[in-house]
Amino acid sequence: MKTIAILGSTGSIGTQTLDVVRANGDIRVAAVSAGKNVSLLERQIREFHPELACVWEERDARLLRERVADLPVKVVYGMEGLKEVAICEEAQILVTAIVGMIGIVPTIEAIKAGKDIALANKETLVTAGHLIMPLAKQCGVKILPVDSEHSAIFQCLNGERECGQDHGSLHKILLTASGGPFRGKSYEELKKVRVEDALKHPNWSMGQKITIDSTTMVNKGLEVMEACWLFDVTPDQIQVVVQPQSIIHSMVQFVDGSVIAQLGTPDMRLPIQYALYYPRRRYLAGERLDFAKIGSITFENPDPETFLGLKYAFEAFAAGGSMTTVFNAANERAVSLFLHGRIGFTQIYDIIRYCMDHHSTIQNPDVAQILDTEKRVYEMIETKWPQSGIRS
Amino acid sequence: MKTIAILGSTGSIGTQTLDVVRANGDIRVAAVSAGKNVSLLERQIREFHPELACVWEERDARLLRERVADLPVKVVYGMEGLKEVAICEEAQILVTAIVGMIGIVPTIEAIKAGKDIALANKETLVTAGHLIMPLAKQCGVKILPVDSEHSAIFQCLNGERECGQDHGSLHKILLTASGGPFRGKSYEELKKVRVEDALKHPNWSMGQKITIDSTTMVNKGLEVMEACWLFDVTPDQIQVVVQPQSIIHSMVQFVDGSVIAQLGTPDMRLPIQYALYYPRRRYLAGERLDFAKIGSITFENPDPETFLGLKYAFEAFAAGGSMTTVFNAANERAVSLFLHGRIGFTQIYDIIRYCMDHHSTIQNPDVAQILDTEKRVYEMIETKWPQSGIRS
Repeated sequence: MKTIAILGSTGSIGTQTLDVVRANGDIRVAAVSAGKNVSLLERQIREFHPELACVWEERDARLLRERVADLPVKVVYGMEGLKEVAICEEAQILVTAIVGMIGIVPTIEAIKAGKDIALANKETLVTAGHLIMPLAKQCGVKILPVDSEHSAIFQCLNGERECGQDHGSLHKILLTASGGPFRGKSYEELKKVRVEDALKHPNWSMGQKITIDSTTMVNKGLEVMEACWLFDVTPDQIQVVVQPQSIIHSMVQFVDGSVIAQLGTPDMRLPIQYALYYPRRRYLAGERLDFAKIGSITFENPDPETFLGLKYAFEAFAAGGSMTTVFNAANERAVSLFLHGRIGFTQIYDIIRYCMDHHSTIQNPDVAQILDTEKRVYEMIETKWPQSGIRS
Repeated sequence: MKTIAILGSTGSIGTQTLDVVRANGDIRVAAVSAGKNVSLLERQIREFHPELACVWEERDARLLRERVADLPVKVVYGMEGLKEVAICEEAQILVTAIVGMIGIVPTIEAIKAGKDIALANKETLVTAGHLIMPLAKQCGVKILPVDSEHSAIFQCLNGERECGQDHGSLHKILLTASGGPFRGKSYEELKKVRVEDALKHPNWSMGQKITIDSTTMVNKGLEVMEACWLFDVTPDQIQVVVQPQSIIHSMVQFVDGSVIAQLGTPDMRLPIQYALYYPRRRYLAGERLDFAKIGSITFENPDPETFLGLKYAFEAFAAGGSMTTVFNAANERAVSLFLHGRIGFTQIYDIIRYCMDHHSTIQNPDVAQILDTEKRVYEMIETKWPQSGIRS
């Protein structure tokens, strides 16, 4: 019997984590957290009987406490509440399915408390990889990737090396990308993209923010940074390969030229389950790949001069330190503005560019400096684009 | 420093094994064997300084002894010689690159002597898998596949399980096939195939026998049998997938639906080197896959009603016992007849069919019974097709 805690149990990864728990029957959920979705959280508490539940606002905590008064669950809130979930004594694994830089501090606390991390919170490694990875090593905890690409790489490296360990025989990572719905379009055409077009991802059903990030290739850029931290490689060891059918979830090339690839249907429950039971595999109900039906898998080079997200990400990672936080925070705010109809599609790139150009990198920032950098990026955008008075 | 012995050092796999030895510089070759190619064997002895060398005929042994009289190498011959090479004390690994059922006895001797086997001799497992695999387990020796498909599967299972060990999380093997140069042709069209057409394999450069076997899909059938023994699966756990570009060398599907594939250029030095250094990988000079250049990888179902090799192989393996020997021996003789222009292409299938139909399976045959079955198949073919007085 394994016991887990989940940060962000009502989101896309959180609910699918609970699907995996439900299907297996030998995982206990000790603690859950949600942002504002009190109703779903209540249902989850009634089904999974955690001893601890957290929401973001105090008033939501009061509401939830009333609703679950018949159950022996402690309800907490805010950052202190998230930290309590993260270090919940009973749990061996913390699933970080929360979105945003809010995940950094609880993840650090969990690592210090010796919890393995099933990591779905991109921002943690993108902004604080230099703090997280050495800490995880020091505390002897595993960072188990939940992203489909990183799980693919992790699976391809199985038996060859573990995350964060020595280089072994890895030559390069072939990080696959669908190329998004606008693959092949010119920059001029991208300028005319509407929100509803951008939200139609060809292969994966995901949250709005990550769907837009896939479209701009910012998501792939964030994944490059994550992969560098997770697998201890340099950006020049990562080649992005466009594979529009999203059948190959990523590949690894070894020093002997051999390439190992992981393929699958677009089902996030697979990487979630793999992380929870690693190194063992379990049966997972669901559709299987049928190669004759697939017919063909195609490959292209990415177009980083049009889809600037990837180009800017490499640039931010090369600058290092706080610059990756700038890249991430500027994008986060820009995507929110785009989703609210306040800016055009390519202005997402303009905003990232502007913020990166107006930031002096702090090398090796601590958590306070990272969070301060995020705040200053938001302020910078509000000053430059006054219509941005919108909270995502 | 590793030390190896090679059965069949002058053939395609043998010479490429020596390429790997040459490139690495930390493998010693203790013993070599060849059929009749005394000149090449002499050059190999001069370059690699084995202490033992074997040829098939006594007169070739006398000739070789004269030519290498200046070197401290013992020259032996025949089956006793092969056995001596197989159990050569200094070697830790025996590379069985010899072609034909002649490899069975030396392989058994090597296993008994505790040598790991880098197995390229298909006939060993096809005809005597029921003897070889339990013996290897009992003697604690590794059977390391050298075939590109089986090496691919072996690499895909790395970290998941070892050859011949418990089932673990493997659901099925997706054994890829190029489909050969006549893919898409009808049975009527196959009847008109000439030797020179059949020898043009689209992707791999191999010996004549295996090139024809690829064309008839007999090779894939032999590989299905080998895979069953190597990875302890049943034939219904093996799905043959036609992948005409031969980029994917095979795949494995696990119980969670995840598929791991091994991809590479068509270079046999990779599986050879992988077997010799397993579980470590070493740098290997050579071309690398360039996915943008590849453009696309396609998949089809095989056509076992036209390319009967695969169908008959499944049938032979289901009958078990000596029937796989019949399949193998009948095909071997039929291919020889085809290569000598004595029979048409589809008569290869007729001969296999006839021999299988006229054989009463001996269950669990010992080596003597296996070799006797081979002999009786040859006799059966000579009686039925009198023009077959040709030794391959």
